[in-house]
Amino acid sequence: MNFLEKYNRYLQEFEERLAVFCGDMSFSPELLTDSMRYSLLSGGKRVRPVLFYAALEALGGDWRAETEFALAIECIHTYSLIHDDLPAMDNDDFRRGRPANHKVFGEGHAVLAGDGLLSLACSLLLKTATDARRSTAAMLLSDAAGPGGMIAGQSADLLFEGRGAGEEELLFIYRNKTAKLIAAPLEMAAVLTEKSRKAMRNFGENLGILFQLRDDLLDVQGESEKVGKTLGKDEAEKKLTCVRVFGAEGAEREANRYECACLSALDEAEGDVSFLREMVSYVRRRDR
Amino acid sequence: MNFLEKYNRYLQEFEERLAVFCGDMSFSPELLTDSMRYSLLSGGKRVRPVLFYAALEALGGDWRAETEFALAIECIHTYSLIHDDLPAMDNDDFRRGRPANHKVFGEGHAVLAGDGLLSLACSLLLKTATDARRSTAAMLLSDAAGPGGMIAGQSADLLFEGRGAGEEELLFIYRNKTAKLIAAPLEMAAVLTEKSRKAMRNFGENLGILFQLRDDLLDVQGESEKVGKTLGKDEAEKKLTCVRVFGAEGAEREANRYECACLSALDEAEGDVSFLREMVSYVRRRDR
Repeated sequence: MNFLEKYNRYLQEFEERLAVFCGDMSFSPELLTDSMRYSLLSGGKRVRPVLFYAALEALGGDWRAETEFALAIECIHTYSLIHDDLPAMDNDDFRRGRPANHKVFGEGHAVLAGDGLLSLACSLLLKTATDARRSTAAMLLSDAAGPGGMIAGQSADLLFEGRGAGEEELLFIYRNKTAKLIAAPLEMAAVLTEKSRKAMRNFGENLGILFQLRDDLLDVQGESEKVGKTLGKDEAEKKLTCVRVFGAEGAEREANRYECACLSALDEAEGDVSFLREMVSYVRRRDR
Repeated sequence: MNFLEKYNRYLQEFEERLAVFCGDMSFSPELLTDSMRYSLLSGGKRVRPVLFYAALEALGGDWRAETEFALAIECIHTYSLIHDDLPAMDNDDFRRGRPANHKVFGEGHAVLAGDGLLSLACSLLLKTATDARRSTAAMLLSDAAGPGGMIAGQSADLLFEGRGAGEEELLFIYRNKTAKLIAAPLEMAAVLTEKSRKAMRNFGENLGILFQLRDDLLDVQGESEKVGKTLGKDEAEKKLTCVRVFGAEGAEREANRYECACLSALDEAEGDVSFLREMVSYVRRRDR
């Protein structure tokens, strides 16, 4: 199997589980269920659950058995996008090539859909945290998503907009807003298999920063049909991005540096990590 | 000890634990921590943690030991108020006699403060869910707060505004928006002590509805300095309230009916539930 076949194997497994999860949802009012489903089922690359499955398989875990963790990871990511697109936050009308949640269901329901998905993630984690090891994995995700992680990054992102902030602030945002929720699935896989925890965390943190570097570059260089959202917004809104801090060329150099750091981190991991190596190149060069 | 002395004993214990919890918070950016602290420490009656402690003590549990559950309960309640006050939701400028969170920290940070508190609640629950019984209690709270509970009530509240909805819709909102998060702490105490689960749930559901009946009545009859928020808003915004459905007199009759149902439910509970009996009267007659 080549890289894309492997990616699609993880992706397909996840999409099947997600379809069942969404099909079983029957919360009332129907609009609430619809709004959560709309964002969960809006495609997307599913990078985080794919990384989780791939790391589990690399480390010898029973990856197909860990549905709750995978769903919780994607519920949290999806909620963060819904709230991030709100007018009071990043104010984005498009996401993954479709109208943002609040454009379809209204702002009030977009707040609630996000709250609902985070609550569902919490319930999934509590359900699956049946022993100390699984609890540790669940807490890793919960902490990475919380005010010591992703939410801190969102807060800094809002605060530094239009300010003369520099490299240090940029890295704070990258680490918290993006890297912690990319590193968490990898470290969770290591915790569940009791293998290579430090290497996986290190790999994830670097991959997460690489992911966000590429995201910022795509906002400048990408094609909006592929990326599926409004481009050029960062510059227009004076967001703190790597292009702003390093220039486009400097940002490419940074990306190369983090690409190397990812591969070095994987050298310390056990198991067959060849797919994860190829993920680095995929994240570095993705056009959507 | 009379009722108020007992209430204050639970309240004081909780406030001490909450002060430590808030004091230990040191998330960066500081504004994010400040915004979460602001709402957590804005006073409030702490009805839910007080009910939790009281039910634990009545059923013979070690109530002072259950700090994480009590904090998680209040974090969830507080997050729900912050998001509920947002312009896209209930659009309230005042809460507990102070400017609403988004009036102080901005809408973006109010969204994040709410998300942060829900995330902290999830981490608290995962930390304390160390065996099957405690997991069950944690899941009760998580489910009550989620799209099968409180969030469903908020959604219905938004959808039914200005519509010709009636008693059935009103009860749906009451049950989900308010009663599930009042019943959860009581049922959690029963699960933790393995006693009187059905009675406590039944009691909580009726007490929750009584609480919301009184809330709607206060919006018409209360004094805004005591209640601490803008009154008369329900009528102005054509919210679906008990006063709208039953008239003020009819709503009082309903409140009497639920008061009786609360006391009957307590008849089926074990332990010394005298404080909980007095809570019924307190909730029925409160002026704030």
